[in-house]
Amino acid sequence: MQRNIKTAEIIVSALPYIQKFRDKIFVIKYGGAAQIDERLKNDFARDIALLHLVGIKVVIVHGGGKKINSILEKLDIKSEFVDGLRVTDEATMEVVEMVLSGLINKEITALLNKHGAKAIGISGKDANMLKAAKTDSGKYGFVGDITDVDESIVLNLLKEGFVPVIAPIATDENANSYNINADLCASAIACKLKAEKIMFLTDTAGILDGEKNLISKLDEASINELKSSGVISGGMIPKVDAALACVKSGVKNSHIIDGRLPHSILLELFTDDGIGTMIR
Amino acid sequence: MQRNIKTAEIIVSALPYIQKFRDKIFVIKYGGAAQIDERLKNDFARDIALLHLVGIKVVIVHGGGKKINSILEKLDIKSEFVDGLRVTDEATMEVVEMVLSGLINKEITALLNKHGAKAIGISGKDANMLKAAKTDSGKYGFVGDITDVDESIVLNLLKEGFVPVIAPIATDENANSYNINADLCASAIACKLKAEKIMFLTDTAGILDGEKNLISKLDEASINELKSSGVISGGMIPKVDAALACVKSGVKNSHIIDGRLPHSILLELFTDDGIGTMIR
Amino acid sequence: MQRNIKTAEIIVSALPYIQKFRDKIFVIKYGGAAQIDERLKNDFARDIALLHLVGIKVVIVHGGGKKINSILEKLDIKSEFVDGLRVTDEATMEVVEMVLSGLINKEITALLNKHGAKAIGISGKDANMLKAAKTDSGKYGFVGDITDVDESIVLNLLKEGFVPVIAPIATDENANSYNINADLCASAIACKLKAEKIMFLTDTAGILDGEKNLISKLDEASINELKSSGVISGGMIPKVDAALACVKSGVKNSHIIDGRLPHSILLELFTDDGIGTMIR
Amino acid sequence: MQRNIKTAEIIVSALPYIQKFRDKIFVIKYGGAAQIDERLKNDFARDIALLHLVGIKVVIVHGGGKKINSILEKLDIKSEFVDGLRVTDEATMEVVEMVLSGLINKEITALLNKHGAKAIGISGKDANMLKAAKTDSGKYGFVGDITDVDESIVLNLLKEGFVPVIAPIATDENANSYNINADLCASAIACKLKAEKIMFLTDTAGILDGEKNLISKLDEASINELKSSGVISGGMIPKVDAALACVKSGVKNSHIIDGRLPHSILLELFTDDGIGTMIR
Amino acid sequence: MQRNIKTAEIIVSALPYIQKFRDKIFVIKYGGAAQIDERLKNDFARDIALLHLVGIKVVIVHGGGKKINSILEKLDIKSEFVDGLRVTDEATMEVVEMVLSGLINKEITALLNKHGAKAIGISGKDANMLKAAKTDSGKYGFVGDITDVDESIVLNLLKEGFVPVIAPIATDENANSYNINADLCASAIACKLKAEKIMFLTDTAGILDGEKNLISKLDEASINELKSSGVISGGMIPKVDAALACVKSGVKNSHIIDGRLPHSILLELFTDDGIGTMIR
Amino acid sequence: MQRNIKTAEIIVSALPYIQKFRDKIFVIKYGGAAQIDERLKNDFARDIALLHLVGIKVVIVHGGGKKINSILEKLDIKSEFVDGLRVTDEATMEVVEMVLSGLINKEITALLNKHGAKAIGISGKDANMLKAAKTDSGKYGFVGDITDVDESIVLNLLKEGFVPVIAPIATDENANSYNINADLCASAIACKLKAEKIMFLTDTAGILDGEKNLISKLDEASINELKSSGVISGGMIPKVDAALACVKSGVKNSHIIDGRLPHSILLELFTDDGIGTMIR
Repeated sequence: MQRNIKTAEIIVSALPYIQKFRDKIFVIKYGGAAQIDERLKNDFARDIALLHLVGIKVVIVHGGGKKINSILEKLDIKSEFVDGLRVTDEATMEVVEMVLSGLINKEITALLNKHGAKAIGISGKDANMLKAAKTDSGKYGFVGDITDVDESIVLNLLKEGFVPVIAPIATDENANSYNINADLCASAIACKLKAEKIMFLTDTAGILDGEKNLISKLDEASINELKSSGVISGGMIPKVDAALACVKSGVKNSHIIDGRLPHSILLELFTDDGIGTMIR
Repeated sequence: MQRNIKTAEIIVSALPYIQKFRDKIFVIKYGGAAQIDERLKNDFARDIALLHLVGIKVVIVHGGGKKINSILEKLDIKSEFVDGLRVTDEATMEVVEMVLSGLINKEITALLNKHGAKAIGISGKDANMLKAAKTDSGKYGFVGDITDVDESIVLNLLKEGFVPVIAPIATDENANSYNINADLCASAIACKLKAEKIMFLTDTAGILDGEKNLISKLDEASINELKSSGVISGGMIPKVDAALACVKSGVKNSHIIDGRLPHSILLELFTDDGIGTMIR
Repeated sequence: MQRNIKTAEIIVSALPYIQKFRDKIFVIKYGGAAQIDERLKNDFARDIALLHLVGIKVVIVHGGGKKINSILEKLDIKSEFVDGLRVTDEATMEVVEMVLSGLINKEITALLNKHGAKAIGISGKDANMLKAAKTDSGKYGFVGDITDVDESIVLNLLKEGFVPVIAPIATDENANSYNINADLCASAIACKLKAEKIMFLTDTAGILDGEKNLISKLDEASINELKSSGVISGGMIPKVDAALACVKSGVKNSHIIDGRLPHSILLELFTDDGIGTMIR
Repeated sequence: MQRNIKTAEIIVSALPYIQKFRDKIFVIKYGGAAQIDERLKNDFARDIALLHLVGIKVVIVHGGGKKINSILEKLDIKSEFVDGLRVTDEATMEVVEMVLSGLINKEITALLNKHGAKAIGISGKDANMLKAAKTDSGKYGFVGDITDVDESIVLNLLKEGFVPVIAPIATDENANSYNINADLCASAIACKLKAEKIMFLTDTAGILDGEKNLISKLDEASINELKSSGVISGGMIPKVDAALACVKSGVKNSHIIDGRLPHSILLELFTDDGIGTMIR
Repeated sequence: MQRNIKTAEIIVSALPYIQKFRDKIFVIKYGGAAQIDERLKNDFARDIALLHLVGIKVVIVHGGGKKINSILEKLDIKSEFVDGLRVTDEATMEVVEMVLSGLINKEITALLNKHGAKAIGISGKDANMLKAAKTDSGKYGFVGDITDVDESIVLNLLKEGFVPVIAPIATDENANSYNINADLCASAIACKLKAEKIMFLTDTAGILDGEKNLISKLDEASINELKSSGVISGGMIPKVDAALACVKSGVKNSHIIDGRLPHSILLELFTDDGIGTMIR
Repeated sequence: MQRNIKTAEIIVSALPYIQKFRDKIFVIKYGGAAQIDERLKNDFARDIALLHLVGIKVVIVHGGGKKINSILEKLDIKSEFVDGLRVTDEATMEVVEMVLSGLINKEITALLNKHGAKAIGISGKDANMLKAAKTDSGKYGFVGDITDVDESIVLNLLKEGFVPVIAPIATDENANSYNINADLCASAIACKLKAEKIMFLTDTAGILDGEKNLISKLDEASINELKSSGVISGGMIPKVDAALACVKSGVKNSHIIDGRLPHSILLELFTDDGIGTMIR
């Protein structure tokens, strides 16, 4: 019995956090280990189901990562590289879209539904949600920058009690498809929705300083400093930029968190000090 | 961190129970130690706040107990007794109503509001909710039996997101006030609302058999047997009758639980075996 | 037949007044003789039922007066006095709340329901409606000044077609109870609701000038004059102040009327010259 | 003051009647003296405005009577007569429709609006409300029997808070216009709406017995008797038939009342014994 | 089959126009040949039914023209003339109203209903929609200028899916009736509704220049020029003024089109170059 | 101008068909040539956009066909065959899902959006819409039979004004994916929605009799006959069965139409004799 009472105590301890976030919109960039490891996947789905049930409005944006490369390889589609980046030609784009919208999007959706979260998977092409233009005049092929977000479909789905799961694909007026960086896609959507929070699940502990210690809070000035000193570099740069852009356009908090931890989302929300790095 | 992950695990473990009970109506008869002990009172309020936040529709019916006697004594109001029961004359009824509707009802309401549950305290006189007639032709004065429940005000408050807290006072067509047994009051309301569950908080572990062991499940046949053998007796009889009446008129489950345990409500809901005795 | 035609004429004569006030909010401070005399009580209830039925949104705020003193006396609770005012210690507050929220509030509610007005009795503690802080740093104990009014519960009840009956009790963040002057309580609520009218039922003909003649209209300048000349004094000062505060914050009209007249409220509304004193 | 108090008493005396009829539908056949005499017209409009304001849903059906004849005469349109009834040829029908829909309908509408009742004048041709077929295979020309009532437009207007004023004109599938007897038109609409009451304003005291005394209540059996004995005869026959048809198809009460009395409608509603004859 | 495919092609070609105008409000001044010629009448009704079905919100304002004169003549009502204009005395006004509200309004309504457009005919007197004052201090009798438009009834009818058909009659506070120029009436209503388009059906090809060639687009400057040079003159002046007034107060486009062409409304809408003259 | 008038005539000729089908649900199985040929694809999209705009509620179910085979081939995934049918193993299912949900579904969605139809692409996995079990105990691998349709998401999307585009993929309680025959999928959805019409776009003229002449109407008896005589055979059997199942469970009409004709859907709807074969 004592153990059960302790359990009840812990559950009740989540109360103030739930009260704080009820009816708020959270945008979650889902990716990395949390999208691959079986246990982490299930933990993630249960976390989302819980948030959904306590009245938090969750929007998931996912990436595709390794699966795309593996299918490209199997299909023996060779890519040109510019600036070290793969150029997305038409054949590649077809694979990108198949994998993102057809495979990964539906896998996440099914997983969430299995845990009771009533999810619907869409891409930015549905209901003309995401409009894009070619990045750098098409230097990288069908890689695009978002030029417009029509948030009405997302708000519709949230109002009807669904969890929208979004594949980062956009179109232009000629119905071309564009591959969008998932971090930037999540950021653009969070900005337009004026979300309460955006969380980026990564495969790092968060942003680390020069001594590899976690920095728990960062502001714009410090970010610029860390970028010029090279402490923030590589793939972390777009994440930090996306996180900062959100905060500057009205999202209350941006978090870069360690998706390798079980229940990373709940850890961030339901503990006082949170995890990872918060950009404010 | 490991402790936090464990915490998250436990919180998530509540998920299937929440999913099961979301949008369902629970009627809770609140009384006994849970209404007096400071720590238990706060635990109760937090439990209710949590149920409220996860979308369970909670209705509280409370009794008055010792406070009524203490005020009667201070006012030096002497009572006649019939069948060993105090006769509720007009002067007594005034005190009963003052204490129930004015003091205890508002104390519970304020406590729940303090923990974020958005409670509203009413009595059966409000919006003509509870109609009564004198019990046994008035042998006990203004002690009444409920003759009609107009559930619309309760449904209204639930729809608007409030937790109704109800003092067991009813009226008749002449606007007289009647003192209603709180167990029977809770039962009548739960029946009319076709509640999912009714829970009676008591100062016992539940219903005990001849060897003083807890009986975890009981049906009508067993109840009748235990009553004739005198194992169920005294104040437990109306509780068991009320619990059984609910189940027979469409309430899914009736529970007699140990209100002396911290978080007794959550213990019943969020653990597989529950606590106390379930009448089915 | 001629008498019946005359009756119809009179009923129809109310038409322009009803048209003028339909869907408007009236806050009525109920007290004095109208709350004690049996005939006046019934007339009051029928007046409110009529206003309610023709679509005026009525909010009642009541005081407690003599009943509180009588119970305090019976309980032999002695009070300290400061500045000639009774200090509300904890024991006194308990009685105040019992009588206001438990007895008087429910008596009014039942009376209105009996005449068909669909009333619900609440106190300022319900749904955290009234927040207060100690008056003059607690010099008078648990006597409070309203610091915040959350009008949503009142608007909710009005929207659902109820007549809210409000006991002037407030809380602070520690769930303490405060005794609020009923005139000021009615005024604070009317201000927040931007009511069309506030009416104070008193045991005088209204505000009288030096020659004891009724003043039918008063503005701020005249009030100040009459206060400095001592013509307005004693218990009339808070009423006048409350009435003036309303007008200054957006309530269209404040009326101090003679509650000793049968149907005083209808007299004020449905006759061209009204009764009592109007503050503008 | 005493006179004012008396006035308030009388106004309040209407309370139980208002409570009884609130939200109910009344269909009123308006005609005769009440449609011609200036004072009666204004009294009628004020009565309707009052009913409208206290929440009764009023539907007016009017006739045309003498105005039609006067215009026909001025236009020198001669009519054939069959069975002593004027045959409505095309030229006559044009006049009937002009006068009913264009003149009288709008005059009533404007009068009601002037007294605050928010009226809208339509004919049975609007929104295809009334469908008709020629009476007796066209023996009387464009005189029709109602074959179908589409009540949706009336319900729509009532829901939006309007008083529908209906000219008794119907169409067939070829968009021909038909002149409908206004009593039968009111009856057909009341039946379809399952109205609470239908009232026929006439230029008699009601139905009189052989000694010319008013009969206050009549049932089907007595009606048949009075018809065979010739006591009910002439223009009263269709009125009685229409009234009886209503009662038989679900309208609670049919009243034939004396429209020559001022405020005849209120007299019927707000006095205990009513006026005229009630068919049940 | 090839013919059917061609048919489908043409129907589909209307798609972009429908998409452009869906949910927009069109006010159509209906008059002239299109109101008299049997084939044009039916074409008009089918055009309106189509607009209604594809989601365009159509409001019809009609005139009366020759029918009024013919009835006046038959009734031998002689008129005084001022400035060459007929003075509308009371007898004339009665005829005007009978014909407009009773005959023409209902004829149009029935015609539209026959083709499935769910029309309701009202005049400016209904629901107090149009208020007027005498033009030039009553020089022309009951000819009025609109002083106020209460658009709520029109919006109500549009919301409920009806096509309002409006007779150009207005009232003043004394319930007098006024004859309103139908062009100006349509214009006043379109302005208040902030319509997308107003279309005036005329018996000319549009506005012609000095060489009798159609001018397809006109702005304010050109209009002033053409008026001073006398090219725009006579009955075309109020139409042009009404059209221009609309555009200046927020209506997107005003069109003066040739109502003598079959389907003139569709021709204007669903062909690229439109017909008639557009005022911008 | 004459040509334009002719155009208007043709557009208006669609009116009665639009009136008949407005607000009705159409389920369209999209496949074959209409899904491949560039011109037919655009015609299809414009047809759907038109139906959508005139208020018909369209639901698209699509197949995948050749694209799946081509990707399987490129990936060098070899399949086992049973009864001449390809067994869908896990690797194949991944490809099926990628192509259907990721590529084809989004291509159709984008195409419809480009023509203004506000489409959203989902699969049967979204919101747990389609539940399935293995066909013939798994003889064909992950080929499934639909066991349950939760139509709420489709109704939600229709209510919000979207065109749902559905990929025929279902799940079971273990979140496995199943490949569903698109004809049967469309049929199951149409049955559950009680659609007005289901249309199967095929690459034949419809159902042909023994002499290769088109049969325009078929009932159950004739179908059985044609099946036993071998006239209906091969891939046409499931189509006919699906079509018949619909009609038997409440869908008004089933049509097998020639998708190779431009605007085949409009041809069926907006011409009197329709095209293809109707099953009733």
